[in-house]
Amino acid sequence: MENFDFFNPVKILFGKGKIAELGNHIPKDAKILMTYGGGSIKKNGVYDQVKTALEAYHVTEFGGIEPNPHFETLMKAVEIVRSEKIDFLLAVGGGSVLDGTKFIAAATYYEGEDEWDILAKHAEISKAMDLGAVLTLAATGSEMNSGGVVTKAATKEKMAFGNPLLFPKFSVLDPETTYSLPQRQITNGIVDAFVHVMEQYLTYPVNSPVQDRFAEGILLTLIEEGPKALASATPDYENRANLMWAATMALNGLIGMGVKSDWATHMIGHELTAFHGIDHAVTLAIVLPGLLNQLKEKRGEKLLQYAERVWNITEGSEKKRKNLAIEKTEAFFNQVGIATHLSEYNVGQDSIDVIVKRFEGRGYVGMLPDVEVKDVAEILEARL
Amino acid sequence: MENFDFFNPVKILFGKGKIAELGNHIPKDAKILMTYGGGSIKKNGVYDQVKTALEAYHVTEFGGIEPNPHFETLMKAVEIVRSEKIDFLLAVGGGSVLDGTKFIAAATYYEGEDEWDILAKHAEISKAMDLGAVLTLAATGSEMNSGGVVTKAATKEKMAFGNPLLFPKFSVLDPETTYSLPQRQITNGIVDAFVHVMEQYLTYPVNSPVQDRFAEGILLTLIEEGPKALASATPDYENRANLMWAATMALNGLIGMGVKSDWATHMIGHELTAFHGIDHAVTLAIVLPGLLNQLKEKRGEKLLQYAERVWNITEGSEKKRKNLAIEKTEAFFNQVGIATHLSEYNVGQDSIDVIVKRFEGRGYVGMLPDVEVKDVAEILEARL
Repeated sequence: MENFDFFNPVKILFGKGKIAELGNHIPKDAKILMTYGGGSIKKNGVYDQVKTALEAYHVTEFGGIEPNPHFETLMKAVEIVRSEKIDFLLAVGGGSVLDGTKFIAAATYYEGEDEWDILAKHAEISKAMDLGAVLTLAATGSEMNSGGVVTKAATKEKMAFGNPLLFPKFSVLDPETTYSLPQRQITNGIVDAFVHVMEQYLTYPVNSPVQDRFAEGILLTLIEEGPKALASATPDYENRANLMWAATMALNGLIGMGVKSDWATHMIGHELTAFHGIDHAVTLAIVLPGLLNQLKEKRGEKLLQYAERVWNITEGSEKKRKNLAIEKTEAFFNQVGIATHLSEYNVGQDSIDVIVKRFEGRGYVGMLPDVEVKDVAEILEARL
Repeated sequence: MENFDFFNPVKILFGKGKIAELGNHIPKDAKILMTYGGGSIKKNGVYDQVKTALEAYHVTEFGGIEPNPHFETLMKAVEIVRSEKIDFLLAVGGGSVLDGTKFIAAATYYEGEDEWDILAKHAEISKAMDLGAVLTLAATGSEMNSGGVVTKAATKEKMAFGNPLLFPKFSVLDPETTYSLPQRQITNGIVDAFVHVMEQYLTYPVNSPVQDRFAEGILLTLIEEGPKALASATPDYENRANLMWAATMALNGLIGMGVKSDWATHMIGHELTAFHGIDHAVTLAIVLPGLLNQLKEKRGEKLLQYAERVWNITEGSEKKRKNLAIEKTEAFFNQVGIATHLSEYNVGQDSIDVIVKRFEGRGYVGMLPDVEVKDVAEILEARL
């Protein structure tokens, strides 16, 4: 196990009815900006629950944060925050609304010339506005971490940022808020959480049995509970609760402590979203099988452990077990409703060439040296 | 899964050499009281590492905190804190030193007449001194939680207390600090962590697959790594690191979220320590097999899951599988060197009678209704 620092001060308020407790966790005199997305919270009752809980507060609203939240949109919110002297941000939505709200929290106090530098140049975040969240989608883990991803629409750049100041003060996780989600979003959430775990688990062994078993526990839960959520005509509370907690634990830092994390799948996937608008989780489902195929030798030991403990594959040659584990992974993505080939999204060789150029300019892919810039073409070409 | 609130703001600094970073986490102008136990840290180099890291600070020392820390001893530290205007506590040791230091942190500001009321009457803790910890023993989890247990020597009462104000600001977990531990303390740590997990896991099923698998992952790690630590002539870093992280995760709140926790084994065990001075972990190893036997029907479902997932017991009747799981649990305690019968500690029926009386006076055992006061006699008599 490698040395690590772990710190995660997010207060999690988990369960049905928890939105009503919001007022216990926001300063009484706060001027709140409530951020949300396309307005589905107005149809499913979440908006009303939040407004009722915040009756005693001064609340300004900022709706319309899109999936893969745009820098351009978020800067409009920053202007409102500055001009209306907002002092608390409440994000109500999924990962995009939460990520976007973290960016607003950081950008509001940014003193440099261009707030985009927070992403493009990793400009220092020395102050951020307090924020809280009401989660409505089990997926990204943003509710219990301090990072986010924002897209600049003008240049089609999708980039990550993070700072301990951006941990939400609290996050409300009420599984009932996910009841009205369309299947596509449930599917995306399952796959997103799954690949978050894989980025931290399927790398090199560093003798970390606790972290490994936690990671495997989350994967097994997603494999069990995911298809159940999609199959049931009426939402089941326990099922939705387990998916929600699994997705949160997948990216709150814990399983990544002391181990080698990668994120190459995300880095390549982000480009597919940036250039083609493909759903984030879908890009991960496309890229991961290609990446694992590419790394069958270099990550062989962990791949065999994954085969055995997650997919119960114990027979056959090492080669056969590895291949079967990768096949089962892709089949799981297909099972929950995701097509996993680029051609199914009208992405061809020309797009791959553009993406490869971007990585060549950047000079790296993920955080581990075993995925090199020159591998990106091969990984994507195998996914055509 | 039940509703829950989760909050754990402890910063964990994990790994070799991490003691040197202490100064980054304590205010520069702090007047520190450094607390420790019997002085083993002066022989194994930990004392010197801490003093070197704190060279720039004003440090007062308070050694001699005993196992099952005494209220009487701790109140002497409280006097020093008050008279010397200490404003930061640094606990260097195992669970007893950490628990004791949490009590000092709370008692210093207690305004009632008798500080013992913090334990006996659960008197409110409205203010506590900031504290940090350097852990030297993988066992209690006190390094990442906000509770403790203190004993009043005068009346042989061992009681628990806790408050979110008592989370350490940070805890340094350097596995190398455990290299010089005697076998007895390593054994006790393994069993203590194991039973911490069992108190939160082996109760009733509430459909909590993530929590269950995390709990099972910790148990499996303790079963694998524990005997290795005891067998190796020279300490192995990875082995000690995994034991340390497993013990911390066993009682930092996470695996207990949304599930039914019990703590009856601890409650009964505490009395054996209070009356007979038997090591805390040893009392747990004595009591747990008796408790599980008593609950074979009431906790049958979870016991069968435990049998299969932790001990790989998949064949035979339900009755046989349950019995085998309990036998394997006791055999594990024996394997790591603990005798698990009261007679081996010269505890007889007369002592059981005294302990039963104490529970009759209290009116409850653990936190779940399936262990009743009337069961205590039967559980203990089966362990003679």
